Amino acid sequence: MSKVISEAYERIKPFIHQTEVHRSRTFNELVGADVYFKCENFQKGGSYKIRGALNAILQLTDEQRKAGIVTHSSGNFAQAVALGGSLLGIENTIVMPENAPKPKVAAVKGYGGKIIFCESTAEAREAAADRVVRETNATFLHPSNMLQVIHGQGTAALELVEQHGAFDQLFCPVGGGGLVAGTILFSQGRNTEVYGVEPFEADDAYRSLQSGKIEGNETTNTIADGLRTTLGDVNFPIIKEGINGIIRVTEAEIVDAMKFVWSRMKLVIEPSSANTVAGVLKSPNIVRGKKVGIIVSGGNVDMNELPW
Amino acid sequence: MSKVISEAYERIKPFIHQTEVHRSRTFNELVGADVYFKCENFQKGGSYKIRGALNAILQLTDEQRKAGIVTHSSGNFAQAVALGGSLLGIENTIVMPENAPKPKVAAVKGYGGKIIFCESTAEAREAAADRVVRETNATFLHPSNMLQVIHGQGTAALELVEQHGAFDQLFCPVGGGGLVAGTILFSQGRNTEVYGVEPFEADDAYRSLQSGKIEGNETTNTIADGLRTTLGDVNFPIIKEGINGIIRVTEAEIVDAMKFVWSRMKLVIEPSSANTVAGVLKSPNIVRGKKVGIIVSGGNVDMNELPW
Repeated sequence: MSKVISEAYERIKPFIHQTEVHRSRTFNELVGADVYFKCENFQKGGSYKIRGALNAILQLTDEQRKAGIVTHSSGNFAQAVALGGSLLGIENTIVMPENAPKPKVAAVKGYGGKIIFCESTAEAREAAADRVVRETNATFLHPSNMLQVIHGQGTAALELVEQHGAFDQLFCPVGGGGLVAGTILFSQGRNTEVYGVEPFEADDAYRSLQSGKIEGNETTNTIADGLRTTLGDVNFPIIKEGINGIIRVTEAEIVDAMKFVWSRMKLVIEPSSANTVAGVLKSPNIVRGKKVGIIVSGGNVDMNELPW
Repeated sequence: MSKVISEAYERIKPFIHQTEVHRSRTFNELVGADVYFKCENFQKGGSYKIRGALNAILQLTDEQRKAGIVTHSSGNFAQAVALGGSLLGIENTIVMPENAPKPKVAAVKGYGGKIIFCESTAEAREAAADRVVRETNATFLHPSNMLQVIHGQGTAALELVEQHGAFDQLFCPVGGGGLVAGTILFSQGRNTEVYGVEPFEADDAYRSLQSGKIEGNETTNTIADGLRTTLGDVNFPIIKEGINGIIRVTEAEIVDAMKFVWSRMKLVIEPSSANTVAGVLKSPNIVRGKKVGIIVSGGNVDMNELPW
């Protein structure tokens, strides 16, 4: 399956940043491993999401391009679709909850996205997006539960391997499941383990793997705002089949990891990415002696709302 | 004079990071220039200071190396000397004020430096360092007023030019004057203007250039803790001769620039570096249409004491 990821990469490469990879001697000593941080916080739009958005957009027919694209998201995928649409000159509509954080609304507007505000419920945002699709014939792009998007997200791992060779293990955050599913598809047949990390406060993926079916979140009371979503029917089978384990972390562990990366590595990473770093920090038994890649998913943080 | 900077670079190159250079489309649009951020926040020890420290240490005789090195600093030069000493296996003593921030004390200890605490006055720290020199024959390294150190600091600009070609203008912070003096020496004969930036709250360099002699600070009430020091008799003549101008910035401008770089560029930079970015932001009349380099001096920030 790794071929679809290579194809996605060739497709999106001209439009994205090849992001840097950072390392920390102190971090390596803490966990006894050789760890590479793939810095998608430096990606266009501030997160890896542009990879999946572009891979989907670039496969639209001319007719579909003319009709435009639509998504619903209050987070990084909103920015990614607005930016991807703007880069390719495609009209794009973003459905956002009326209580979405102002910096995120401003970012989408800055990229030239058309925003439709709706009530802050899953039903309301789906209804609003459906309406756009019906009225304009726009193509709906799902943030995580869509194969073209999943394949695009897998290119972060591909690029990391192109930059630094093969890895024993890759760690991803698990929110909607798109990034981890893409990373799993890329890693098939490569002798690379893939681990997901999620907050205890939004551990739907952990419980879904336990029960064997998609579970909702019992709470979403986490500072990792990108990880409050749940898995979908497209990515869950991929995750179920290919994941080596899911590590859960506490809110305090997320804050500690975030402070470490900010203060020691000088990288602004968002709580969802600190979640992944925290997962590695609490897993020396898994990572010891290994070559480990962390997909640092993004760096979009409201500086006036820091979690400490 | 650029040759001494090249020689310094050859000397220290095996021991330092070749730091990345970042750019921002949004920042370029704001100032109408093509701006390159030389990220010394990613340098070993979290700032450019290791360059000057190593250049001085590497020119010691075997006998001097055996006797060790000493400095007084509560800031980035303390870490640089501790780290430089540790990298080269040279005993090092750092005189720090007893009220030095705990993270900085911890960092020096982490690099294996021997700390001597003293009262928080210039006299006390000089007396303490003198005592170490008398008792152990250690070599005293000055953070900014010493040619070997100045030459080392000039290698940040050299490396930036190696990475991205010639520049029209280079912007540095001005604290003790070592970095800007080194940058001036490197830029001689290159058709490159050098500008210094300092806070209104510690504008000794601005006033020294006005009066033609070294002036003290009237206040040091600035969040840019690295810039509270004053120029010295070694670097002042170089600065006086070669600088194209000094821009002064307010505390609010420093905070705004810091928030911009953290939130938009995902880089943790310290207030002294935000000072320099603020200087460029308020000088579109100087930079418009130019290729501009900013020496981002460091990223050592106490996350529990953010200035907003």
